[in-house]
Amino acid sequence: MFVNTMPRYEILSADSIAVLERGWRRIVSEIGIQFAKPEAVELFAKAGQQVDGDVVKLDPDFVLEQVAKAPREFDVQARNPAHNVHIGGDHMVFSAVYGCPFVREGDVRRDATLQDFRQLASLAQAYPELDSAGGVICEPNDAPLDSRHLDMIYALQTLTDKIYMGNVVSGPNAADTIKMTEILFGGRDIIERTPATISLINCNSPLRWDDRMLDAQFEYCAAGQPVVLTPFLLMGAMSPVTIPAALTQQLAEALSGIALAQLIRPGTPVIFGSFLSNIDMQSGSPSFGTPESAIGLLCTGQLARHYGLPFRTGGGLNSSQTADAQSAYEALMTLLPTFLAGTNFVMHAAGWLEGGLVSCYEKFIIDIELLRELRVEFTPLEITEESLAFGAHEEIGHGGHFLGAEHTMERFRDCFQRPWLSSTSNFERWLKQGAKDTAARAGEIWRTKLESFEAPPLDDAIRAELDDFVTRRRRELGD
Amino acid sequence: MFVNTMPRYEILSADSIAVLERGWRRIVSEIGIQFAKPEAVELFAKAGQQVDGDVVKLDPDFVLEQVAKAPREFDVQARNPAHNVHIGGDHMVFSAVYGCPFVREGDVRRDATLQDFRQLASLAQAYPELDSAGGVICEPNDAPLDSRHLDMIYALQTLTDKIYMGNVVSGPNAADTIKMTEILFGGRDIIERTPATISLINCNSPLRWDDRMLDAQFEYCAAGQPVVLTPFLLMGAMSPVTIPAALTQQLAEALSGIALAQLIRPGTPVIFGSFLSNIDMQSGSPSFGTPESAIGLLCTGQLARHYGLPFRTGGGLNSSQTADAQSAYEALMTLLPTFLAGTNFVMHAAGWLEGGLVSCYEKFIIDIELLRELRVEFTPLEITEESLAFGAHEEIGHGGHFLGAEHTMERFRDCFQRPWLSSTSNFERWLKQGAKDTAARAGEIWRTKLESFEAPPLDDAIRAELDDFVTRRRRELGD
Repeated sequence: MFVNTMPRYEILSADSIAVLERGWRRIVSEIGIQFAKPEAVELFAKAGQQVDGDVVKLDPDFVLEQVAKAPREFDVQARNPAHNVHIGGDHMVFSAVYGCPFVREGDVRRDATLQDFRQLASLAQAYPELDSAGGVICEPNDAPLDSRHLDMIYALQTLTDKIYMGNVVSGPNAADTIKMTEILFGGRDIIERTPATISLINCNSPLRWDDRMLDAQFEYCAAGQPVVLTPFLLMGAMSPVTIPAALTQQLAEALSGIALAQLIRPGTPVIFGSFLSNIDMQSGSPSFGTPESAIGLLCTGQLARHYGLPFRTGGGLNSSQTADAQSAYEALMTLLPTFLAGTNFVMHAAGWLEGGLVSCYEKFIIDIELLRELRVEFTPLEITEESLAFGAHEEIGHGGHFLGAEHTMERFRDCFQRPWLSSTSNFERWLKQGAKDTAARAGEIWRTKLESFEAPPLDDAIRAELDDFVTRRRRELGD
Repeated sequence: MFVNTMPRYEILSADSIAVLERGWRRIVSEIGIQFAKPEAVELFAKAGQQVDGDVVKLDPDFVLEQVAKAPREFDVQARNPAHNVHIGGDHMVFSAVYGCPFVREGDVRRDATLQDFRQLASLAQAYPELDSAGGVICEPNDAPLDSRHLDMIYALQTLTDKIYMGNVVSGPNAADTIKMTEILFGGRDIIERTPATISLINCNSPLRWDDRMLDAQFEYCAAGQPVVLTPFLLMGAMSPVTIPAALTQQLAEALSGIALAQLIRPGTPVIFGSFLSNIDMQSGSPSFGTPESAIGLLCTGQLARHYGLPFRTGGGLNSSQTADAQSAYEALMTLLPTFLAGTNFVMHAAGWLEGGLVSCYEKFIIDIELLRELRVEFTPLEITEESLAFGAHEEIGHGGHFLGAEHTMERFRDCFQRPWLSSTSNFERWLKQGAKDTAARAGEIWRTKLESFEAPPLDDAIRAELDDFVTRRRRELGD
């Protein structure tokens, strides 16, 4: 887990924050938020909020009272305690791409399979830059639809010993996730004391929380498992085209979802979620890695801190169809602001391609390289008298070089981040090495990594219990 | 010219700056700086500095007294007044890649020619994101060696109407640049009143200013033409391997060069230069777009402001051999901090490939896209009641979409930066369009742009005078 103690890059004035604050207050109180689940509406009604069908008009001060019940920071446990994470403060937690129906390896783009899921989960386990494989690292299209959540959770539990994300397709899927987590960790009380999953609850923006997502939210919140309440905003489609309007809507949606979480179980851990980009107004297609999304990201971090909430945003987002220059610059156009904002929980940190339709193996490796570099870049520089290396200057003098200086010899092994995917070979050497571009080199790296992969050890009895559970539930689900 | 009124990202504490300050003071006073030109040493001696051969041991307070004579901000005129620039403050001036012996177009890498020089200069003229083609946009290897500076300056003067950089290979070359600039602008007094060139004076780091560069500096400073005094630091080779040591050395070198400029002509405009990266300690090759260079860049901006000087750093640097993912992420890993630091003069802003050995046409286009996006990203967000688009929410309500909203229809043409090189096409459409990656699309863009290029108009008499000068000087030089 990376701790980012560098300064935050903040671009909103106090006046601007006040304008945005008035904006979300007006939305929740005058237009209201739709909750497509009677139990949710009932909770708000009981708490004295004004209900009109499934639309709840919320008193903004009531919303903030609920929000104040959420912890500012919390822990999530992994089955390997070395991989426990802390959410909030200066901590940054990274998880892999989520939700892609397709995969790409090299020039081949195809439907994702369960084997891809396992491979990508293994890669997420293998690289320390990721704290989690995430959840739906790709959609295992060859696994039976009704029970594939069991296959995914099982793969995450057995191929990784890091934290994982829960299934949110339905309430029963969420309940299965929780049951399997209880098995892995040794009981409900243990995971209620320290949560062991994080789950993504998306808003059906604008201003509507859907029934199945809410069913999942109810299950997770009741079990004290954190949820990432995430407005899903592509400006121009799910929100107005101005960034301030999107930020206001994002606050209205996220804070209302967080208020609900606190009504379900006061004190339940939550993450202020943001998925904010825009559409290409010419094609109507989603755009990622845009300047507008970067601005939104920086503002989101500042607003989440203003309300005292850990937040999720960012990742290696891009619209590109292959692991080419565009995929890289769009990814970094999002990832660098992700660090500048001090984002606490970063989904899609590795592997995202083609607007999130594709989990790309090569892009996964490119993103790991970016994360490595950014971790170095966001490590504070220590400036001391000794770091000035005056003795090296005395040794080398004028017009010489420091390659053989004593100061260099003592430090050359680890003084700089070592390029790993990136090549510094001169042209002739690069030609001799096969003239491989970045994507080709990335392809070699992930294949080699998978060949040597060994799943982390797991107690046989726990594995057997998980197997039994999956078998039984699959039968019950008719798959 | 872009004006960056966003906040600066500053990472040095006052204590750290004090340590670095003590560091450069010790270097200039105890080790001294080598000036390989007797006239330079003489100027320092006359001013009371301690001289030992060609090494000058400088009183740091004397250095700062000289530095204080340099203007904090200044103008540089272009032959098209619409392209005049202002150096310093919040202004950012961008120029193209500089100094490459090779070019790459698509899969072909070859010696650069004068025709490449002309083509690249034309592209620099064509894109408003660049304020200058720079100087040696590529090395015209097919032009006679002794007179090719004339061909380059002539091309910059006739194919562009933006500011350009002077030749610095020798004193006579600098004098030729100044003469040709006098012809273009109508006399020495006119360019002394408002300078019309900027020239790059590199330090032969560590701690040595070479004779030919100094010869050029003397010419330019005597004519009141700004020089960019640039320590050339690849940590591990030309400086120690610690970033603080490199920053200290950079201050010692740049400030000593600036002091000399002020001795040559008090008040002459200067730019605090920085070219700071590191070598790959495994291969000994230069690395660019590294986290260490990004940290150095951010610190450089802060230090230059501390000493009240406009500064140069950044650009689209990278070590990659082709216009692939690495070239893009390394470029942005430098360009984004370039904006965060509020860099006043940015060389290598478009076209840099392969550690600066190659001017790449496709990379040129990629960088222009990055500059477009960063200009939007670094434009302050206006947050007003009206920008919140409350009416759009009233119109659309819950779970709808904003594509047809009145608010959207009024703004869709220019609400977002339009992707230009970047593709948002869905996969099927992208396949139909030829499955072109970013580099392939960039290749189409620059070829199309060149086809429609028209050089800016130039007065016939001036052109004739320039022609005469070039012909005469070429004869004198024996080419």
